This record gives sequence, C-alpha cells and structure tokens, in this order.
Amino acid sequence: MKQVIIVGGVAGGATAAAQLRRINPDINITIYEKGRDISFGNCGLPYNIGGEVSDRDKLVAATPATMAERDIVVKTHHEVRSVDSEGRKLLVKDLEEDREFEAAYDYLILSPGGAPRTIPALLDVPQAFVLHNLEDLDDIKAHIAEHDVNKVVVIGAGYIGLELIENFVRRGMDVTFIHRSEEVYRPLEDDLGNFFIEEMERQGVDVRLNTEIVEVDGNVATLSNGEQVDAPMIVAGIGILPRTEFLGGSGVALNDAGFICTDETGCTSADCVYALGDAIETFYQHVDRKTTVALAWGAHRMAYVIANQIGGDDDVKFEGLLGTNIIRFFDYDIATLGLQQNEVREYDHFIVDHKQKNKAGYMDGSVPIRVRIYVSTEDGRILRAAVVGTEGVDKRIDLLAAHIRLGGTAEDLVNIEVAYSPPYSSPKSVLNMLGYKTIEKMKKFK
Amino acid sequence: MKQVIIVGGVAGGATAAAQLRRINPDINITIYEKGRDISFGNCGLPYNIGGEVSDRDKLVAATPATMAERDIVVKTHHEVRSVDSEGRKLLVKDLEEDREFEAAYDYLILSPGGAPRTIPALLDVPQAFVLHNLEDLDDIKAHIAEHDVNKVVVIGAGYIGLELIENFVRRGMDVTFIHRSEEVYRPLEDDLGNFFIEEMERQGVDVRLNTEIVEVDGNVATLSNGEQVDAPMIVAGIGILPRTEFLGGSGVALNDAGFICTDETGCTSADCVYALGDAIETFYQHVDRKTTVALAWGAHRMAYVIANQIGGDDDVKFEGLLGTNIIRFFDYDIATLGLQQNEVREYDHFIVDHKQKNKAGYMDGSVPIRVRIYVSTEDGRILRAAVVGTEGVDKRIDLLAAHIRLGGTAEDLVNIEVAYSPPYSSPKSVLNMLGYKTIEKMKKFK
Repeated sequence: MKQVIIVGGVAGGATAAAQLRRINPDINITIYEKGRDISFGNCGLPYNIGGEVSDRDKLVAATPATMAERDIVVKTHHEVRSVDSEGRKLLVKDLEEDREFEAAYDYLILSPGGAPRTIPALLDVPQAFVLHNLEDLDDIKAHIAEHDVNKVVVIGAGYIGLELIENFVRRGMDVTFIHRSEEVYRPLEDDLGNFFIEEMERQGVDVRLNTEIVEVDGNVATLSNGEQVDAPMIVAGIGILPRTEFLGGSGVALNDAGFICTDETGCTSADCVYALGDAIETFYQHVDRKTTVALAWGAHRMAYVIANQIGGDDDVKFEGLLGTNIIRFFDYDIATLGLQQNEVREYDHFIVDHKQKNKAGYMDGSVPIRVRIYVSTEDGRILRAAVVGTEGVDKRIDLLAAHIRLGGTAEDLVNIEVAYSPPYSSPKSVLNMLGYKTIEKMKKFK
Repeated sequence: MKQVIIVGGVAGGATAAAQLRRINPDINITIYEKGRDISFGNCGLPYNIGGEVSDRDKLVAATPATMAERDIVVKTHHEVRSVDSEGRKLLVKDLEEDREFEAAYDYLILSPGGAPRTIPALLDVPQAFVLHNLEDLDDIKAHIAEHDVNKVVVIGAGYIGLELIENFVRRGMDVTFIHRSEEVYRPLEDDLGNFFIEEMERQGVDVRLNTEIVEVDGNVATLSNGEQVDAPMIVAGIGILPRTEFLGGSGVALNDAGFICTDETGCTSADCVYALGDAIETFYQHVDRKTTVALAWGAHRMAYVIANQIGGDDDVKFEGLLGTNIIRFFDYDIATLGLQQNEVREYDHFIVDHKQKNKAGYMDGSVPIRVRIYVSTEDGRILRAAVVGTEGVDKRIDLLAAHIRLGGTAEDLVNIEVAYSPPYSSPKSVLNMLGYKTIEKMKKFK
C-alpha cells in the first residue's frame, strides 16, 4: 500500500488526512505533529478567552483516537527534523522518547504552519505568552487562574492582537495595548482604520503608542519611552514566521521569506511532495502574482485539492486566492481582499469609494458601510477592496469575492441582482452604486 | 426639444425621470401619476406601521416640487386613459378638474405598476384597507387613531400579508390572520416554510386557516367555516394585478396575464414606448424563459437602461432577472431566487440540500442556515435556490445571485473564497459545502 506522510496535524494537515481517507480507503496515512494536539480550531482560540466559545472542548474537531477510527495514524510530540525528497524519507524525532527514526513515504504533505514571533524583551519572561495553539490557550487560562490575574498587556496590532484585546475586554480584564507605531491593523488603509484606537479607548483599554517593551522585571514592564506598566501577564500577537527550517537541504524550494513554493496542484518543487497552510507561497487568483495568505479558507481548499491529486481526480486544481479576510473588532467588521496596499501601487488603477446605509436609508437603525475598490485602469478589474462598517460587511466582501472570481469587473457590479427588502439593502445596493460610480469614472479613461 | 412622457411616478417612473435628466439636460420630461404621491418607498410602508420607519416622511424620496427643481414636470391625480402608439399621443384625465386632454410624446415610458387585489366580501366595507401606497398608509393610521383600533384582521399570506402581520404585532395590536389554505408564502417550498404558522402563534397571532371572509357586518366578519371574528379593521395583502387596462388598443403588446412585454432595452412592442416596474414581463437571466418579477431591483435597473436607451448610450442593456428576493418574518429571513417551484419542475434537475451553522460551529449563538438548490442535471447550472434561517440568509442568497449571474455552476460553489473568521462563517462556508455535496451527486450523472 502507498504510504502518505503528513507533517503537521492542525487544520490543514488533519483536513488533508480526512479528505484523503474519504477518497481512498487503500492507503496508509500517518500524521506527525510536533505539538500536543491536532485538528483544533485555532481561529477560535481567542473567543474561548472572551467566553463566546464557552465550551473549550468544542474547539477540538478530531483527536488521535477519532483519527484512528478512520485508520489514520497520528503521532503527536513528533517533530520532523529533515526531509530527503530524493530518497523519499524523513528524519523524525519522538520528543517524548527523545529518539530519532527514519520514515519513508510515497507522498509527503507538508503542513507545518507558522511559528509565532516574539520580541527579545519577552524571552524567558514567565508571564509572557503567545496564542497560537490549544496548549497556549490552556497555559494562558491556567496562568490567569493560578495568579488571579485581572490585567493583561497585549502587544501586536494584527488580527491576533486585536482579537486578544477584544476578548480580554469581554472577559472583564484590564487591558493595556502597547504598539510600536500608530498604525493599527496593516491590512486596512490607515484612513479607513481610524476607529481602532478610538474604539479601544471607548472600551477602557490603556493605549500606549509609538513605544515597545524593553525590559520586564517581575510584574513590571519598562517601555522604550521610559514609562512603566503593570504586567502580570503579557500576550504577544505579532505575527508568524513559516516553520520551514527543517526543509533546508530537502530539495523542496522555499521563497526568499522561507515559504514553501507550491503550484496549482499543491505540489512543491519536489516530486510527490505537497504543501498547504500558513507556510506556503501560492498565487493570486485575479492577477499574475505570487502571494502568501495565512488563512484557513485556502488551507481547507488546498487539502481537498491535494487529497484529489494524490488519491482521486488529478483534474481538481487550486485556483489561487484573493486573500478574502475579515476581522471583528467589538462592533466593527473589517474586511479586505485582493492585492495588498503596497502591491496595488504597482498597477495602474483608480479608486472608487462609496458609503451607504446597510438597509433602506429610511429604516431606523440603518448604519453606514464604507467600501473602497481599486480598479485597474486598463480593464476595469477590481484589484483590491476594503469594506468597513458595523453591519453587513461580510456580505459585501463575499459578494465581491464571488464577483471578481468569475471575471466580474467594477463596472459590472451594477448588474448584481441583490435581494432587496428594507431590512437588508437599498434597491440599489452598496455594490451596485460602486458600479455606477465606476462607470462614471471609467468614462474619463475611454 | 424631445418630449418624454412617463406614466406612473412611483419608484420606477420617478427613477427613470431622474436618470434621464441626469444624462440629458435637453429633453422635456413629464410624469403623469394617478395617485396623490410620487417617488415614495413603497417597500417601507409596512415598517412605518410597526415603527421601524419612525419618520413617515423619510419614505418620500422626491416630491413634485423637488422634481421641478430638476426641470421635471409632475402631474399628480392625472390618469392616463389610453395610448395611441401610432399617433404617439395619450389621452390624459385630470382627476381633480375632471377634464381630459391629449398629450404628444416622442418617447413614452410606462410605469403603471399594479393594482392591489381584494375579495368581494370587502368591497364597500369602510374598515377594509390595502397597503399599496402612501395614501393607504395614511388612511390606515388615521383609521387606527380615529377609532382607537387595537385589533386587526390580516388576509393574504404573500410578502405584504406577512409584513403586515409582523408590523401590526410590533405595533402592539391584536392580529387575526385569515387564510384560505394552509400554504403560507408561496415563493417558498412548503417543507421549508413550516415555521410560519408556528411563529405566528408564538407571537400571539390568532390564526384561522382554510377559511375566508364571506361577509362583514359592522365590526364583525363572518368566515366561510361559520366562525365570526372581531374586525374593526381589515387589511388585505393578497397580491397585485398589472394596471394595464388603459393599454387596450394602444398597439403595446401585453402577455396573457396582462403584463407589458419588454425586451432587453426595456422597449415594448411599440416604437419608442418603454416599460418598467411591476407591470412588465421580462426574462430570466439564467434560463431562456419569460418572467414577471414585481420587485424593486429590476425596476431601478430598468430605469437606468431605459434612460440610457433614450438619452445616452444605447449599448446599455437589461440582463434579465433572477428574481432574487428576501423577506423578514420576525426572527426569520427567507430568500429565494431563480425559477419558481412550478417552473423548475419542467427542467431535469436534482436537489442539493444543506444545513450548516452561520458561524463557526463552536461559537455560542451560531444558528443554522438551510440552503436548497435545484441543479440542472444537464450542465450543473443552479436553476433555483431557497435559503432560510435567522442570520446571514441575505449574504448567502446575494452570493448565489452573483455566482449564477457570471455562469458559476453548483459544483463551482466550492471555489468561492469567502471571508472566514469564527463570527462570520466556517472555513468551508455553507455555499462551499453545497458545492462539495453537488460534486458527489454529479458523479452519478457522469
């Protein structure tokens, strides 16, 4: 029987295993996972802190035992140390037994994910945490319980940082937010994100901008501006780095930033070696350009593609990504898709910006939605979009994703026949109006 | 200067006038409206009764005075009695002055709308109303105020009937619902709509099914089953008929049901005569078939098309409709699109049905969404869709509309890259899962 080895058992790896087993009962599948747990909902971790996921165990989608029922072998606390793609074998370390062994594969699926970044001042600080996996969640909650902590310092203004702030506030804790600059949540345009700091202050967060922690002594953190803050717990959410050091010399090509290069079949540069998840470089769907998108949708889709490539129908391909993403921050919903801000500058484009109520304007409780699209001057394609509001943002970004995917242009937005009734939209929806505005602007380029 | 006459000044007619003026300053535009008001948000009328549109005047988008500022002549209480499309003239009756006159046009735009249906037993009943325009709304509210009415009988189980029930309950009135059958809200499959009656009863509505009013004597209505109900006010929401009698002998073709036949330019069978709104027959976007859709989105889109055809760019075309629609009924959202149930039976199809939480399943407060699609066995096209739930239904139906419009098949739903974060979706969204289910089902047909 063919031997498939999967490196990493969180969302991407576990899903690939399940898909592969569903398609092909006659194949051996083994997952090596460095950590304690597999197949947990890592996007849900912050919401267990805040209480919106009240049952922590619901975050666990599968265990080694449930995987065994599907004849999938799971080895946790097993770290893959190196890959030999010529010889089709791995060096694996059993971290509990402290021993190394070789494992041979016919197909290898790499889903190593990312390693959370931290800052030098937090190394060896016992009350400093990250929130990357279930072990981290359990550690944070144990620390809160054991030390009766009611105050937390959050660093990092990306999506994990913001979700941590929201959820610690919801938990009733005093939150201090420390950030190196004034720029919060880089995926969003600064002028659209001007509510972030305002909202933090409204929620009682102690906001310290343009500074960072330089030293932690006991429960006190000293900042680069000389201030000191109470820090009985510090949680850093400052991004991840691809966990791909073990691929040095493997024959699997990495890009300059260390992400694993993949193609439309999920295959890497090495035969029979596939990769998915947060550690891969893939490509945009709507423009000819590489990208890395550390989000769950792409991992799940790629799991299906790879499972089919290996065990089923090799016509199933990965279409690339728009990087559609959304984050909730208290009452706000913030979503973007497409090229990043620094990337879109390289393309001739014009901007269409529109603000409109989410419901019929005469309805009490209707609230504004702001949509900005970056339109290719050349052909009217939507290169990038950002949507901000407090209701219905997810609807508009998903619609844009579906529209762009099938070749819909910005002008063409006028033709999307949305469901209209006063509680849901205007007869001419936010996106229809963006289309009409684009038509007027395009006239200048014709 | 060219003379454009518009028959009917509610949403469709008023919007066409405004669009035309925007495009072409050098044209005479006259609107003849039979009623008292123009350009009001008729979809919002029920919500003023319930209080969600607290400011009744916000329902009025434009008045004859504001139209005059844009050099658009509005004649209210003017009924167009007949059309001579050969001679390009109309016979108009000034209802206030009780005199008739002829008016000549270069272009004619017909937006007569529908006339609300009623039942014989309600003719000449002083406390019987419909809710079709602003005058009706004012009359209903005046009747409630003058007679201190706290009880209302609603007949009709279409969208107006349901919105009336919801809004009278919200107003705090006792509501009796009388309906000829047990089928509520025909656009939706019976087995998906089994919550309607349950919800009415939960809301304290007195539900009388399989019966109808046969006589009203004073404030008492007698039903066909012999029961009597207190009826100090009765409001009927039992549909509309196209108001097209005046087109007899006009040279403008009507279909068998009296709707005005139109093409992709909005033109009727008569030269220079266009039509839009609730009284037209148009065509489906996704299958080759005629349809009538008395909804606002199409009217607004057609207004733009006709304005461009007459005064601007005659490349602007109407794409046809999916009939995307949605209604709120208390906590429920109910949406459908595409062929109607009786129509879809004529096409070889199979059904894919899926129920999934609106958010990540582990989130407290996540609620199920049910989606049913009717997939063409021949080519995987989605012929019809229905979505029911209490959160996020509008998002899913709009996404389906955008997807189908650009040729996306049911299998292809797997590729829509939705914005995922636990408060908004699962990584594999409801629609992605429908796609995966379809792929499995399609295998049987290949």
